[in-house]
Amino acid sequence: MNYRMTIQYDGTRYSGWQRQGNTAGTIQNRLERELSHLLGEETAIHGSGRTDAGVHALGQVASFHTKGTIACETFLADLNRALPGDIAVTELVPAAPRFHARLHAIEKTYRYTVLNSPISDVFGRRFSYQLDTPLNPSVMEEGAQLLLGTHDFVGFSTGHTKKSTIRTLKTLSLSREGSRLELYFTGDGFLYNMVRILTGTLLEIGMGRRTIETIPMIFETGDRRLAGFTAPPQGLCLMEVVYPPQEVSSC
Amino acid sequence: MNYRMTIQYDGTRYSGWQRQGNTAGTIQNRLERELSHLLGEETAIHGSGRTDAGVHALGQVASFHTKGTIACETFLADLNRALPGDIAVTELVPAAPRFHARLHAIEKTYRYTVLNSPISDVFGRRFSYQLDTPLNPSVMEEGAQLLLGTHDFVGFSTGHTKKSTIRTLKTLSLSREGSRLELYFTGDGFLYNMVRILTGTLLEIGMGRRTIETIPMIFETGDRRLAGFTAPPQGLCLMEVVYPPQEVSSC
Repeated sequence: MNYRMTIQYDGTRYSGWQRQGNTAGTIQNRLERELSHLLGEETAIHGSGRTDAGVHALGQVASFHTKGTIACETFLADLNRALPGDIAVTELVPAAPRFHARLHAIEKTYRYTVLNSPISDVFGRRFSYQLDTPLNPSVMEEGAQLLLGTHDFVGFSTGHTKKSTIRTLKTLSLSREGSRLELYFTGDGFLYNMVRILTGTLLEIGMGRRTIETIPMIFETGDRRLAGFTAPPQGLCLMEVVYPPQEVSSC
Repeated sequence: MNYRMTIQYDGTRYSGWQRQGNTAGTIQNRLERELSHLLGEETAIHGSGRTDAGVHALGQVASFHTKGTIACETFLADLNRALPGDIAVTELVPAAPRFHARLHAIEKTYRYTVLNSPISDVFGRRFSYQLDTPLNPSVMEEGAQLLLGTHDFVGFSTGHTKKSTIRTLKTLSLSREGSRLELYFTGDGFLYNMVRILTGTLLEIGMGRRTIETIPMIFETGDRRLAGFTAPPQGLCLMEVVYPPQEVSSC
């Protein structure tokens, strides 16, 4: 049987979802260990995608195959009892036989949280990036509009790939409540470090350290050096992964 | 000059606000160290009261005297830069000459947060107590009504004191949002462990492990053994300390 699960994690003490070559200290590794133990068979899971060291998730999705059938509700409780407090599986449902969490993902939403204040938030500091410098929200909104749509985002990523670096950023919304600024990115996929570099670029625009005119230049040249800094991992959270309805069946 | 400050802290890694005899690893100790360093004179602070190891605060209040006058805004920024990320001073204002954060406090509010779910909240786990067993909210509300008012709360406390154990619990409100249950306690003062034992007693009532009739019995006998368990510290947060208007003057 094939299963789909939704996972929350506080990424603070992990080397990310999965680490190239070495999987020790990763969230995937920890989940596979507990699943294999409970199912009594070596179990490999497929995540919707990697998240970096220190990045969090409220809605990571993973799929796995097992020989038998799982009693979802009791199994979910057993699994959560076995997992450490910073990883929780919030949903476990049977999936269509060919469902694959990475291959079938059609849309993802990330949130980046900035605490724009000289005073740290003692409760939120592990889940936000504190920035003292005041930000101009209207110029950030203008910058966000220029990022929307289908572009070659290679200049907003790190690392090399032979695959296409064209992505569609469907929505980018900024919301501010007090000193808390949240940026929501929804797109059909994101390149390595793309959300963090988009965030860093918008923050530099908001601080007046760059103009929105650099955005079309980065698209044209694909030059990473023209884009902003890579915002630190602790502000980033994978919120949701969307699949086509026919790939998802429920308990 | 006399000053009043408001302090937030994540109490997870501290031995509480102040520890009898030994102040190493306490929040008070850390604040006194940074204040003394910045002011260039040995500075003692008076908190509104102690909080236990692992207990948090959003609105702890403390007062201190210093020889000179402080430029509040720049000093506050310097102080927060010196403090670790889990302690933040959110307000610093001149106080009336005889203002004392403990002696003049007339009202305090505590919040206790319960995550009533089999699934852990990976982001809130350091600031809540997870309880799997379903709770009956209406019987807890009835119990809360019986706790209100002026009583001898000695049965809802630990430790011995020669001082009066009569306190007035002015409000006790329960609010639930999804699996998150918050209990707000406002009173003229609280005995040692009182909020945590009141919470433990209400939770046992909510789980059906005791009846509300035990509450008047505990008041009558003052017997700690009749009351519920001491709810763990991480769910507790000191929200606000209130002072008479004449004791408070602002920048």
